[in-house]
Amino acid sequence: MKPNLLSDKKVIITAAITGGIHGKWANPALPLTAEEQAQAALECYEAGASILHIHVRDDEGQNTPDLKYYGKTVKQIGEKCPIIRQIGNGIGAKVVERKFTTKSGKKRVTTEIVQPSLDERLNLLNIEPEPEMHTINAGSFEFRTPYGGSLFLNPQDFNRKYIKRCNKKGFGIEIEVYDSSHITNVLEFVETGILTPPLHFSLVLGIKGGAEANPANLLRMVDQLPEGSTWQVVTVGKFNLRTTVMAMCMGGNIRTGLEDTIYYGKGELAQSNTQLVKRTVRIAKEIGREVATVDEAKEILGIK
Amino acid sequence: MKPNLLSDKKVIITAAITGGIHGKWANPALPLTAEEQAQAALECYEAGASILHIHVRDDEGQNTPDLKYYGKTVKQIGEKCPIIRQIGNGIGAKVVERKFTTKSGKKRVTTEIVQPSLDERLNLLNIEPEPEMHTINAGSFEFRTPYGGSLFLNPQDFNRKYIKRCNKKGFGIEIEVYDSSHITNVLEFVETGILTPPLHFSLVLGIKGGAEANPANLLRMVDQLPEGSTWQVVTVGKFNLRTTVMAMCMGGNIRTGLEDTIYYGKGELAQSNTQLVKRTVRIAKEIGREVATVDEAKEILGIK
Amino acid sequence: MKPNLLSDKKVIITAAITGGIHGKWANPALPLTAEEQAQAALECYEAGASILHIHVRDDEGQNTPDLKYYGKTVKQIGEKCPIIRQIGNGIGAKVVERKFTTKSGKKRVTTEIVQPSLDERLNLLNIEPEPEMHTINAGSFEFRTPYGGSLFLNPQDFNRKYIKRCNKKGFGIEIEVYDSSHITNVLEFVETGILTPPLHFSLVLGIKGGAEANPANLLRMVDQLPEGSTWQVVTVGKFNLRTTVMAMCMGGNIRTGLEDTIYYGKGELAQSNTQLVKRTVRIAKEIGREVATVDEAKEILGIK
Amino acid sequence: MKPNLLSDKKVIITAAITGGIHGKWANPALPLTAEEQAQAALECYEAGASILHIHVRDDEGQNTPDLKYYGKTVKQIGEKCPIIRQIGNGIGAKVVERKFTTKSGKKRVTTEIVQPSLDERLNLLNIEPEPEMHTINAGSFEFRTPYGGSLFLNPQDFNRKYIKRCNKKGFGIEIEVYDSSHITNVLEFVETGILTPPLHFSLVLGIKGGAEANPANLLRMVDQLPEGSTWQVVTVGKFNLRTTVMAMCMGGNIRTGLEDTIYYGKGELAQSNTQLVKRTVRIAKEIGREVATVDEAKEILGIK
Repeated sequence: MKPNLLSDKKVIITAAITGGIHGKWANPALPLTAEEQAQAALECYEAGASILHIHVRDDEGQNTPDLKYYGKTVKQIGEKCPIIRQIGNGIGAKVVERKFTTKSGKKRVTTEIVQPSLDERLNLLNIEPEPEMHTINAGSFEFRTPYGGSLFLNPQDFNRKYIKRCNKKGFGIEIEVYDSSHITNVLEFVETGILTPPLHFSLVLGIKGGAEANPANLLRMVDQLPEGSTWQVVTVGKFNLRTTVMAMCMGGNIRTGLEDTIYYGKGELAQSNTQLVKRTVRIAKEIGREVATVDEAKEILGIK
Repeated sequence: MKPNLLSDKKVIITAAITGGIHGKWANPALPLTAEEQAQAALECYEAGASILHIHVRDDEGQNTPDLKYYGKTVKQIGEKCPIIRQIGNGIGAKVVERKFTTKSGKKRVTTEIVQPSLDERLNLLNIEPEPEMHTINAGSFEFRTPYGGSLFLNPQDFNRKYIKRCNKKGFGIEIEVYDSSHITNVLEFVETGILTPPLHFSLVLGIKGGAEANPANLLRMVDQLPEGSTWQVVTVGKFNLRTTVMAMCMGGNIRTGLEDTIYYGKGELAQSNTQLVKRTVRIAKEIGREVATVDEAKEILGIK
Repeated sequence: MKPNLLSDKKVIITAAITGGIHGKWANPALPLTAEEQAQAALECYEAGASILHIHVRDDEGQNTPDLKYYGKTVKQIGEKCPIIRQIGNGIGAKVVERKFTTKSGKKRVTTEIVQPSLDERLNLLNIEPEPEMHTINAGSFEFRTPYGGSLFLNPQDFNRKYIKRCNKKGFGIEIEVYDSSHITNVLEFVETGILTPPLHFSLVLGIKGGAEANPANLLRMVDQLPEGSTWQVVTVGKFNLRTTVMAMCMGGNIRTGLEDTIYYGKGELAQSNTQLVKRTVRIAKEIGREVATVDEAKEILGIK
Repeated sequence: MKPNLLSDKKVIITAAITGGIHGKWANPALPLTAEEQAQAALECYEAGASILHIHVRDDEGQNTPDLKYYGKTVKQIGEKCPIIRQIGNGIGAKVVERKFTTKSGKKRVTTEIVQPSLDERLNLLNIEPEPEMHTINAGSFEFRTPYGGSLFLNPQDFNRKYIKRCNKKGFGIEIEVYDSSHITNVLEFVETGILTPPLHFSLVLGIKGGAEANPANLLRMVDQLPEGSTWQVVTVGKFNLRTTVMAMCMGGNIRTGLEDTIYYGKGELAQSNTQLVKRTVRIAKEIGREVATVDEAKEILGIK
């Protein structure tokens, strides 16, 4: 599809408040517990966000596939406000310490980045209470961060299974793509009827191992989307703000939050998720795009 | 060159306050006389603009090549503030009434769009006091407006002559291109040494007869620019705001003003040039780009 | 529309045998008279061409709008073979000598490039016998050649009139575009119902004053075409062969001939139009594309 | 870098004669044993190929990481002709039968696609006699074929190690990229000095799991390459011929062979690798590009 510079569609704001990489060591404002996330959700909702992208943490603040934590967080968010709850099915990697003894008898500790298993991720479909949306990631690649890299596994068979179960349960689906080939993977699902347009994309740019954050890649990806798709960019760190603004100029939606950038400006930590959301609301208004309410977002995305 | 999403260069704001098409009938806030333009210049300068793009009008408010009006306007602007004065060398077309008698003896009046001659345009180089910059238009095409179309003549020979005289007199040059081929025309001048990079481009989009205002055309054009160029988009009407915002995200400069859009929002006339300038300043700050002062703009553009 | 790497559509070959720029001084194989053109047409037809793009010359070998020459050429071609006759409505410029006396009394001769008038071009619609197709040029620009440049006038009003008359008379229409904006001009005609898809485009690249011959411009242009269009590239000189081959790989048609390139290879003059046509036929076969007969071409193009 | 339509560089032809997917069941002309490969190498060399891309098979015709087979094949090829031997470091997947007993006691056989380990692949650097070049694959993704898919692992750490050893041993390196992000991975190696331009790329298109075979992806990728790179496209099946021809038009090199396409035309099996090579030679000559000898290829690629 072609970007639309004249779009007067309401813009949907997704707040990605926690993520699967950083902890409070990176930005103390990062909400980790169910309570913190629910409070952040409420504030983002009041600021204009209609979707909350969710990763949860265990009692040590580590990423966890444990449904206990998911259920608690989803429940508490729902009690605070009617924001659409979207589960990021990558969960996030865990940093695990491995102790070992060298040949010369010395004790050493090394750290390793461990991804959850596909079964643990599939299990997210059983979160209770049920969230409104799930995110799938449309391709496998090596996801590299400043803290280490690991293989981010998203085989087509796994995604097919995940999507079918979402369809069966009536969950909304958001599709994250990290390069041009991932969109081709999605189009295979459309051809075989697993996915039915309109689809909802996050064009992820700037992850090491994925496509670079630049306007040519952004346009190339938008061009590949099926007609009628909705889309937003997800860019990390320093690229976050400007690609997001470009997207809203071209008819895309907005995603921001501490998952995507722990900074508000150069060298300046963001004070809260809300601070990031509020800025995008201000800019959206400046360029003539109104912000969608939760009900409007649900209608646009076809979510019950 | 490639767009730069991380640019921390100061952004230069050009206010195009009058233009060569509209009159007060379109927007009463349009400054026409020297006095009005000088006052608008001052306000735009105070709001953050460092360049003023100038077209002048005669006592009837019509576009005119008469140096008397140019001199007066340039002089009065200079007395108000140190903003860089940039003369648009297209001058602007004149609507001329032609009276005639039909075969059956009835008297009729028809209107015709008349462009100034190339000699009249060349004569702009003699404006006294001297402005700091001139704009050239890098290709000929049919410039069509809702009020009529006419051939906008910019032969390569004419431009060569114009540029050489600018070089001789030490005037800064801004190059307006309305399609991909116009950039190719400019590159011919670079090859033959008439123009020496860094060059300063306005990528004009959305004029009927020129390239359509869409992100693909914008990227295509930026890609053609010689390394080290500075650039901005000039888009008219409803496209103005969002392409301008995209440009500032990608490291470009800003141009806005009543020449480019008489509206502030959908169906809402702009109250003043300043209102338009102020909005771009707010957005620039939101996305982390500081606004260049006149001195900074002069340094960036290599203008004395 | 998107290029199609798997196209199994028959490829239509247009032979542009004469053109409006060169004479026998440039390549003695250039057919100028009606007899020469008819003979070349026959040979190109036998080699696989189904369309003949026609410019005619007067008895001095100069481009001419004189219908006498057009009629004679069109007639003789028709007597030789059933190839589709396509009139290039630009006619071609004339080199005119101007004698003058200098201030010091010396007699001088200067040459000037003179384009035919719009009325002379419109008159091509009255050629008898009637050819099957006319070519329109979808935008005005300065057409520069190594022998001089001149303004190539194709105002939207003129084209509208030309197209309407073609529609009335049932002539097929081929649309030549020299830059992205020209396609936008054409889309205006589609919106207003003057032109009805499928349309037939020549994407002209490499003319000085028009878009540069490079793959990015080619792709950009194809992307702008309405779905279902047929297209070919027209590139001049050294670019001719490879862009033509790229086009046939992407599902486009072929145009070649001495109008587009007087050379067969680097520094090697082409021996005949047929030599150029035969090479494209060989390459088309190598890449698995069969050549359309005249009847097949007529069906594809919707020509009676 | 920009594609070059006027390239007069000698074109390097790589014959990929065997591959890691098909067996004689797919095309009986596929050379598997050392003897067959050496004979095919000789014929391709005589037809114009200067590089031989090598995968080997064990006595059952299965892909194998066993150096015994590699050594034998490399040796025999070297005895036949001086063609540059290039080892594809992916080796190729093995189809493995797994026998199991169902809960109800029935015996079943299932097949599984098994990739060689990273250590087995690293071991290719010890082939004796030493080949002239190695191929690295610049990213991990799910490589899906009509016969099944499997994860193609190419972590950045593994590639770094592989490249460093190649550099140490003086092997030439060819870099295969399957999407835009893989080129970004390569640029990281350039930045850190692991790889030093000029680099030699294969832009692989049309693999399921990788970027789609279309001109936009091809251009996007070429645009990302560092200045001075050499490149070819590797496309599979029906896309092979036309993308290859497009690449040679744009200044790229050629790769073809039964690894890439077992067909010569639609529904017509290729008779031999040589048949495919010869066709590209004919087309290269038609478009004015001479074929590089082995010595010329070595000079272009900087191979001893």
